Amino acid sequence: MASHDSAKRRLTILGSTGSIGTNTLDVIERLGGRERFDVVAVTGNGNIPLLAEQAVKVRAELAVTANDSQYENLKAALAGTGIQVAAGKSGLIEAAERNADWVMAAIVGNAGLAPTLAAARRGADIALANKECLVSAGSLFIDAVKKGGGRLLPVDSEHNAIFQVLEEHQRHAVERIILTASGGPFRTKSLEEMRHVTADVARAHPNWSMGLKISIDSASMFNKALEMIEAKHLFALEPAQVEVIVHPQSVIHSMVGYTDGSVLAQLGCPDMRTAIGYALSYPSRCSLPIERLDFAKLSRLDFEAPDEVRFPAIRLARRAMVEGGVQGAVLNGAKETALDAFIAGRTGFLAMAEIVEKVMDKLADLPAAATMDDVFAADEKARHLAAGLLR
Amino acid sequence: MASHDSAKRRLTILGSTGSIGTNTLDVIERLGGRERFDVVAVTGNGNIPLLAEQAVKVRAELAVTANDSQYENLKAALAGTGIQVAAGKSGLIEAAERNADWVMAAIVGNAGLAPTLAAARRGADIALANKECLVSAGSLFIDAVKKGGGRLLPVDSEHNAIFQVLEEHQRHAVERIILTASGGPFRTKSLEEMRHVTADVARAHPNWSMGLKISIDSASMFNKALEMIEAKHLFALEPAQVEVIVHPQSVIHSMVGYTDGSVLAQLGCPDMRTAIGYALSYPSRCSLPIERLDFAKLSRLDFEAPDEVRFPAIRLARRAMVEGGVQGAVLNGAKETALDAFIAGRTGFLAMAEIVEKVMDKLADLPAAATMDDVFAADEKARHLAAGLLR
Repeated sequence: MASHDSAKRRLTILGSTGSIGTNTLDVIERLGGRERFDVVAVTGNGNIPLLAEQAVKVRAELAVTANDSQYENLKAALAGTGIQVAAGKSGLIEAAERNADWVMAAIVGNAGLAPTLAAARRGADIALANKECLVSAGSLFIDAVKKGGGRLLPVDSEHNAIFQVLEEHQRHAVERIILTASGGPFRTKSLEEMRHVTADVARAHPNWSMGLKISIDSASMFNKALEMIEAKHLFALEPAQVEVIVHPQSVIHSMVGYTDGSVLAQLGCPDMRTAIGYALSYPSRCSLPIERLDFAKLSRLDFEAPDEVRFPAIRLARRAMVEGGVQGAVLNGAKETALDAFIAGRTGFLAMAEIVEKVMDKLADLPAAATMDDVFAADEKARHLAAGLLR
Repeated sequence: MASHDSAKRRLTILGSTGSIGTNTLDVIERLGGRERFDVVAVTGNGNIPLLAEQAVKVRAELAVTANDSQYENLKAALAGTGIQVAAGKSGLIEAAERNADWVMAAIVGNAGLAPTLAAARRGADIALANKECLVSAGSLFIDAVKKGGGRLLPVDSEHNAIFQVLEEHQRHAVERIILTASGGPFRTKSLEEMRHVTADVARAHPNWSMGLKISIDSASMFNKALEMIEAKHLFALEPAQVEVIVHPQSVIHSMVGYTDGSVLAQLGCPDMRTAIGYALSYPSRCSLPIERLDFAKLSRLDFEAPDEVRFPAIRLARRAMVEGGVQGAVLNGAKETALDAFIAGRTGFLAMAEIVEKVMDKLADLPAAATMDDVFAADEKARHLAAGLLR
């Protein structure tokens, strides 16, 4: 972790205008704002008014739009503020490389890989919300974090839960992790009903308010599939140690099972600020005005095994973990392409997993990635094959 | 903690012939037996054959019966083994004072107080199963442990659960603890039905196989009341921080709520060896062949607020915590007397709490205990008053 004369921690938020980003700024404000923190950089994509407003409010040193064509707009919006402006991939890298102690990695998709890696390599603590870093780049990313010497702090509610109850000095005694899954809106639907659903139906998540893509991934359980692969890398587990249980209320965010029969769990109301606050305060804990769990009001928590016939994503994730190499990138690339096609109405809900499986079959012999370019190449191959299957 | 040349840990089991004691010996055997541990002393009461068998099996240095009149029997049973024999209160103290690093305090009732205190004062790690040390002696006992310098390791499943998820470096962020209660066999019974139950009916605990007295305490929720008072002392909490939730399946053993909205929980199958193994292995974790939780099989966990009209014990515990002083000893002494009367058929099920409350009213002005004698005096007064009310 970089150190500075100032007692203030220096923070950068990669992806500040999204849901994780805005919640991160809310948590920063509640935990002391500019009294305790200096915000080094904020980055966004197309929402220039919000990005500029954020940059001014937190007095960031640098504001970056990932979209080159928005550079002039952002510059105009921040004229006279003294805030530096940059754009595009190089701008994101510049934001990541500035000397923040703690970097929220909340850029969605492959676009988040390079800047997050850049921050990891220079030893910043990484609050990780981007999925591709672990799903696609897996051991390359973990190695970069280790070499850099910073901490990897998961922000996804499931991984954050595991991080909270996985005792570092007890790693020898970890038997399994149990990721909880809401089961999504189709938990009780038949295979036949699922075959004909549209994106509008699939986006209705029962517990969390999320973006369109992640809501559909939740409905297909591809979201959980990605989390399984992430968890394997994040906590250095064997594939068989990664379990999934459907828990419709999403109150237990995930669990760790130990060799003495104990299972430790983290529970909470569905508010991502708990995980963000934990990542920002670690190894301490903060105070947040978040709704508290009321167990009498909850009344009950339910559990059921995931149905891998209706939700083949779980089976495909296990396969990607077992096969290793670049199969995480392949699964993710194929899934993204199929998901875009589903949203555009060009393929069916169940066809998404069929396409992913076929692409995984075809690319099963790809060698493990030695560099990030190998990861991108596998991702590209998977997207290309998936697109071909969709035609 | 006492240190020795030998790499083996030296253990003493106070109360080795009871349920906790036999499970402790089972855990010791599974974790390496005489390869890793030397058993210094075992103590029992009237079950001389079992006590002698245990002493021989673990090659204890000393075997003690709490019952003076059994001294000759125990001596005869151990003749020729080279195992030393003692009896009575002084024998128990001798067992506690021998140089074991770790002492399981599993003697039931007030009889456990003096030997547990003796072990705490000389700095042994105390695996605590006896309730009176905290319910009746409270701060005196905690002070003795602190002065002695040993660790206090709770073995009761609820307190052990809290101990597992109460992060010592996060004490500032602990908002509340949530003790789970099965609700006992009368959870869904009406007040009128409860009025007429007998000891035979009351002893049927839904989840744990336990002794007669603790089963009836579970039915009346006096067991939970004692645990509330214990938790307050054990974890240095304010009375308002101690919550109780009825959870009929007893899978979540208890929880800790933090200021960031997180609730951490320890879950497990109902097997006291998990808690014993944790206390023996702390700060590490051991491997035990205990049934693992299967959440799909569990299917659901239920919660409801305790009904303080049908279970006034909860209200009385809160009162004892708020009033402080010797009210824990008063509550416990009165409860023990009423419980004996109930078992003997001399009073009704609901009358137990009425008697305890009346005794607490009468002894509300007793000063706090400066010595253990004050604790015993308060206990005696409570028992005497309760006996009077029962006549």
